[in-house]
Formats: sequence, structure tokens, C-alpha cells
Amino acid sequence: MAQRFTENHEVTYYECDVNQRMTFPAMLSIAVKVSEDQSDSLNRGADFVHTFGLTWVITTYQIKINRLPKVGENIKVSTKATSYNKYFCYRNFWFHNEAGEELVMIETVFALMNIETRKMSSVPEEVILPFESEKIKKIKRYPVIEKIETGEMLPYRVRYYDIDSNHHVNNSVYFNWMIDILGLDFLTEYTLKEVNVRFDKEVEYGVEIESHVEKVILDDEIKTRHEIRIGQQLYCEANIQWQKNN
Amino acid sequence: MAQRFTENHEVTYYECDVNQRMTFPAMLSIAVKVSEDQSDSLNRGADFVHTFGLTWVITTYQIKINRLPKVGENIKVSTKATSYNKYFCYRNFWFHNEAGEELVMIETVFALMNIETRKMSSVPEEVILPFESEKIKKIKRYPVIEKIETGEMLPYRVRYYDIDSNHHVNNSVYFNWMIDILGLDFLTEYTLKEVNVRFDKEVEYGVEIESHVEKVILDDEIKTRHEIRIGQQLYCEANIQWQKNN
Repeated sequence: MAQRFTENHEVTYYECDVNQRMTFPAMLSIAVKVSEDQSDSLNRGADFVHTFGLTWVITTYQIKINRLPKVGENIKVSTKATSYNKYFCYRNFWFHNEAGEELVMIETVFALMNIETRKMSSVPEEVILPFESEKIKKIKRYPVIEKIETGEMLPYRVRYYDIDSNHHVNNSVYFNWMIDILGLDFLTEYTLKEVNVRFDKEVEYGVEIESHVEKVILDDEIKTRHEIRIGQQLYCEANIQWQKNN
Repeated sequence: MAQRFTENHEVTYYECDVNQRMTFPAMLSIAVKVSEDQSDSLNRGADFVHTFGLTWVITTYQIKINRLPKVGENIKVSTKATSYNKYFCYRNFWFHNEAGEELVMIETVFALMNIETRKMSSVPEEVILPFESEKIKKIKRYPVIEKIETGEMLPYRVRYYDIDSNHHVNNSVYFNWMIDILGLDFLTEYTLKEVNVRFDKEVEYGVEIESHVEKVILDDEIKTRHEIRIGQQLYCEANIQWQKNN
């Protein structure tokens, strides 16, 4: 049985948006922090992984939101490295309120990348064993991400504070670009319900990316399709389902 | 004697830049959080201030940095509302490491603004009394902020996540605009030493601001002058002193 690891977190004003709800970038940053703390507690932190010449990257997020955490709320953030195969490690995250209600559930796919060549590596047993994840043969399939047919675009220049210690853009920044283009009115009228994201390529410092979006209206539901691109090169794509606020 | 209020804080990776040092926006967000928690503990939180039709704004920061907090470090953040006069409240912040060494010291000037008219208000005794600040007659003077003579400029569009619950840009975002324009090479070669900032006007959602900068080289010291403007209208200005990394 994979080990579950939990931390308490107080939701601060600077982690929340104009509507007092936790921002998407803050939510994912906190999730990653909890997984790093679990790895450190098992002596499998970034330094240990670096001894193999490797670093973790997250390739897929599937996020289901019952309700976003709110300013001042005390929440619990849990994670479990559920299973792995030759190339991928599957890790789940849960956000609960103080009453134990599930607010957010995130499934992620982690992979190991060679720091020099930037190529994917198989998963060394020494790196994964202490998490007591289930070893599986199967490669999990996630919902197909629908492409944009006709959309709008805004350019975003990569900023100094967007990059992490690898000089690549931190994952959470992609969400800033994807969410921002929707605008204040839309983001006040609708709340996130489900998000599927795939990362295809790392964005580096110094470039300007294009955030493309298409809104699809289906009865009383709204979906948005997102692509982060530079010209024809795709870096990240996502589908988001929204629900109207009451 | 004014009451001092302290919180512990663990510096996370997402509060730090590519050089593993706490970002300026994160530092100021955490400072403001600690002052809000002090106010709440004295029943003088934002809701209480709102009953007067008022809200706090910060007009001036004077920041002295011995060393920026680093990833993983456990720090103490303290604040004290030292003194006040008819229109201004003076509040200091200190960041200390676990050994009790002072890392950062911030002097700030707070003022109260009418939420409807956006005009400055005098400070009601009921709002300030529990902090036990010294009542003074004098208006404190801060160093004159030198203007830009010839500089460079980059435009920044205000993003959804830049705004707070008043629909105005959060203070910490101005620092993102001022710091970002200096670029990765400069920000890796130099570290912040002293910062003087004055806020003149609130930036609203939906606009594009201009971040202007001028570098001034004096022997082995570097100063930068900053102005956030939209055309001729000044919103924020700052002077920063830098020191070269060893």
C-alpha cells in the first residue's frame, strides 16, 4: 500500500484571486511542495534524484474540483505515489477542508528527464521503492484533449519570476497564461469544475508564448480549450469544464 | 510601547526565484499577511476598518536587505505599528533567520482610503488604539526618489491574478514589473541591498502599464531607478541599490 503524506495549510490572501478563491497556480505549487516534502522525508528528494543525472517533470494533470479553497480556510493537502511503470509514476493529490470534505482531487503523471539531454529516462528502482507504490505494466490513458478549431490569442512574455532553478518555466505559470486570457468577467461568472492538461515541451526564459483559447457552449455547461504555442510548436494543451456561479 | 507580533514561516520553492532566494513579491505578500494577522488578533481586521467605509493602502516602503531568505529556511516575520499621526500609520517589519540574525528590515507607511471616493481619510482612534502605537505630530520624511533621466521601457498588461478583492493591482505586482525588466543576467549577477518605493496611484484591471528603468553605475555600486507609468501619469516610483554577488 503506497504511503500517504499529509500537510496542513492555511490559505492566505496572496494565494487567492479577486473572488477570494485559491488560484490555480497557487494550488498546484502547494501540491508539488507537499510531494517534495514527502520525497525529502523518504530521502528521495531532488538531490538524490540528481545523483542519477535526472529531474522530475510533470506531464499530465487531471483535476476535479468540488469547491476551491477560500481565503483564511485551514485545509489538508495529501499525496500518494499510487503506482508506476517503466517510464511513468502516478501520483494523486487531495485537498480537504477541516470537516474532512474533499475540495479538490488531482491525478498527475510524473516522469524522469535526463538533465543534460532533456530526454525521458526509465524510473530507477532506488528512486521509487520507498514510496511503496504499486508496480504496474499498463500505461494509463487520460481523456483525449480536444484541439482548438477557432480561437483567440494573447501573447505572454516569459518573466524572470516565471522560471525555476532549471531555467525553465514553472508548471504553474502555464495556468496563469491559460486562465488570464479568459478575463475578469468570465472568471467571476464561472468556476473551475474539471481540468485536463498535458505538457508537451518546456518553455524557456526569454521567449514570448501565445496563449490560445476557444470557448465551447453546450447547453448550460461551458468548456474551454487551451493551447500554449510558439508558432506551430505546441508546448501545453488543456481542456477545462466550468460551472456557473450561483 | 507598541505591540510586536511574530509568525514563523517556512520559505517554499514557489516563493523563490531561479537563484533560490525569496522573491520580492513573496516577501512583501508575507509581510502584509503578518500585519493582517496582527490586526485580526486585535479585532481590527479589514472588516472592522470597512465599518468606517475605509480600507488600508501602503504608500511607502523602505527596505534594507542584509540577505534574502533562501529556499527551505525557517524564518520569523515580525511587525510593529510603531507610531501614527493624523493621516499616516508607520509600521515596521523584520525578517530573522533561526539564529536570530536580521535578514530584512522594512519600514512602511500605511494610510486609510475611503472605499467609495478613493480619497485619503484621517485615522480614527478606534482603528489604531489597540496597537499601542505612539501618537506623533511629525510627518516622517523618506529619501527623495530620484527620477529617470534616460531609460528603457517594457509594457506589462495587468493580468487577472494581479488584482486583489478591490479590483486594484496588488502592491507586490508592481515589484514584479520593476524587477522583471532588469533581466535574468543582471538579477543573477546582483542582489538587492536597499529599496525605496513610493506608490502614487492605483493601477486598475484591464490596462497596460509601462515599466521604465534606468541603471546608474557608481564605482562598484549599481543603482536602478524605476517608474511605473501610463503615458505621463505616474503610478509608482522606486530607487534600488544593488550589490554584486560573490
